Amino acid sequence: MKYDKDVDELRIRLGSERTRLIARISSEIRISAGLFLRKKGFIELNPVIISPLTDPLRHKTLNGSIDYLDSRFYLMRSMIFHKQISLLGLEKIFIFSPNVRLEPADHAETGRHLLEFTQIDIEMKDVGREEVMALAEEMLIYILEHVIRQCAGELSTLKRTLIIPRKPFTRIRYLEAYEEYGPAFEILISQRARAPFWIIDIPIEAREFYDREYTEQPGILCDMDMIYPEGYGEALSGGEREYEYEKILERVRNYETNPQDLVWYLELAKMGLPRCAGFGIGVERLTRYICGLAHIAEATVFPKIPGAIGI
Amino acid sequence: MKYDKDVDELRIRLGSERTRLIARISSEIRISAGLFLRKKGFIELNPVIISPLTDPLRHKTLNGSIDYLDSRFYLMRSMIFHKQISLLGLEKIFIFSPNVRLEPADHAETGRHLLEFTQIDIEMKDVGREEVMALAEEMLIYILEHVIRQCAGELSTLKRTLIIPRKPFTRIRYLEAYEEYGPAFEILISQRARAPFWIIDIPIEAREFYDREYTEQPGILCDMDMIYPEGYGEALSGGEREYEYEKILERVRNYETNPQDLVWYLELAKMGLPRCAGFGIGVERLTRYICGLAHIAEATVFPKIPGAIGI
Repeated sequence: MKYDKDVDELRIRLGSERTRLIARISSEIRISAGLFLRKKGFIELNPVIISPLTDPLRHKTLNGSIDYLDSRFYLMRSMIFHKQISLLGLEKIFIFSPNVRLEPADHAETGRHLLEFTQIDIEMKDVGREEVMALAEEMLIYILEHVIRQCAGELSTLKRTLIIPRKPFTRIRYLEAYEEYGPAFEILISQRARAPFWIIDIPIEAREFYDREYTEQPGILCDMDMIYPEGYGEALSGGEREYEYEKILERVRNYETNPQDLVWYLELAKMGLPRCAGFGIGVERLTRYICGLAHIAEATVFPKIPGAIGI
Repeated sequence: MKYDKDVDELRIRLGSERTRLIARISSEIRISAGLFLRKKGFIELNPVIISPLTDPLRHKTLNGSIDYLDSRFYLMRSMIFHKQISLLGLEKIFIFSPNVRLEPADHAETGRHLLEFTQIDIEMKDVGREEVMALAEEMLIYILEHVIRQCAGELSTLKRTLIIPRKPFTRIRYLEAYEEYGPAFEILISQRARAPFWIIDIPIEAREFYDREYTEQPGILCDMDMIYPEGYGEALSGGEREYEYEKILERVRNYETNPQDLVWYLELAKMGLPRCAGFGIGVERLTRYICGLAHIAEATVFPKIPGAIGI
């Protein structure tokens, strides 16, 4: 029976003290993120799980799709468009968004990729990048302080010492980082850093089509990634969103996406979209950083590792 | 453009005050459920979204599946098996579990079915049905009190008056209800009821194979459904779980499931499963009941109605 070894490994992992400690910390991360956002006046929406409309993503993954009657639903890769659309009636929203990205098997080696994960998808109406960057910094500090307070014993057993970062976090422009460190700049700077930092102003060709281009700097987007220190890599991605229909159309045309998949979004955009900005932060990556784990597979009770059998 | 009308309807609905009020109440339901369970010592796990192992369900839906390398993943219909397995190492867990059930188009008419929904999946180790029934009653009352306190204005605008039910809720044995009211007993009693009530001791042939059979009453399971009053129907399903391997094997053999789909579960069961009990309560159905909505489609910002186009 080919599952024998895997089942045995699963039993050992599930029964271990280490799994219990990390599960407890992950639970406190989820709870504290929700508490923080509620205090800030955000409304939590139910997640979309499958939809004809999802994030096209620049980084290519296999597409998971399901046919139902005359419709084709994709597994959600992020709730970017639903977030933006929901702000037609709401001001500040978040979702614990269940995302599936069918990564190639060799992405198991990055230590940062799972086939499924939870992303806290956050979006605010009528605000710019500064407000959401300030929110993200405050939120990360809130979660870190909460976990240090609630899970001191767990962190100590894991031999993990966390330092609360100081606001505002350092900002590095994408092109300057690229010039100094080459194409692997993100992980190189992460490995040297002692505190989370920002990569800002990402070039249009390195990003999806929905972040807003600066009027005064063509080809550069008003967006950002937050990067964890100590080599843990990307924490979150976000930015101001494009809302002008003509610009969206032009961006979509230059992007290798099937416009048919965006029909709902384009029809809504034609009638006017809200100005907004936001970000998405992965729960398992945050758990990995907080717990100091070598591989993200340890950050969740039922990890789905690229290329591996798993439940 | 065939989406014109739908897009227009979506814009109107998303921009409406009614959608905003219900979203605010739904958000408070999610938050208060998490707070209650955390206070009770439960750990929140990340959801499983796709897996080779999911709930076979007695009530047949279309199967959503995704092929990835050599694996076939199903969209989760509940986290029943993952809940039970996680208790190999943990004591009390819950998950905001994203479920997809590709219902036939005519289920749109029930007012209670969506293609995707969030279920709060709860499981406790080494407890019996009494403890989880008491927990469910306390949890419902906690959420109702929280929403009445936090959303008085919203409920008043929706013209919804809620009465806090008294513990313990009335219990009706399945076979007695069936005898008195016929096969549609659940909705008939729900329509007449002024408070939530329990249907208990469900016959083995009316239920999935994983709930535990009474030793002293063969053919009857030690499980339960909670039903909302005023015709809102089923609130939650739960029970004690079968954990003895020989009994599980016998139940699976008598059940119209492909045993290959249960290979992980059966291998784990062979080595020993924890005794446990729990339940799953749907967020959108709870929102529908609390808000007093005619159709569940109103209970969430992006509803997926059986048979309809939707994002």
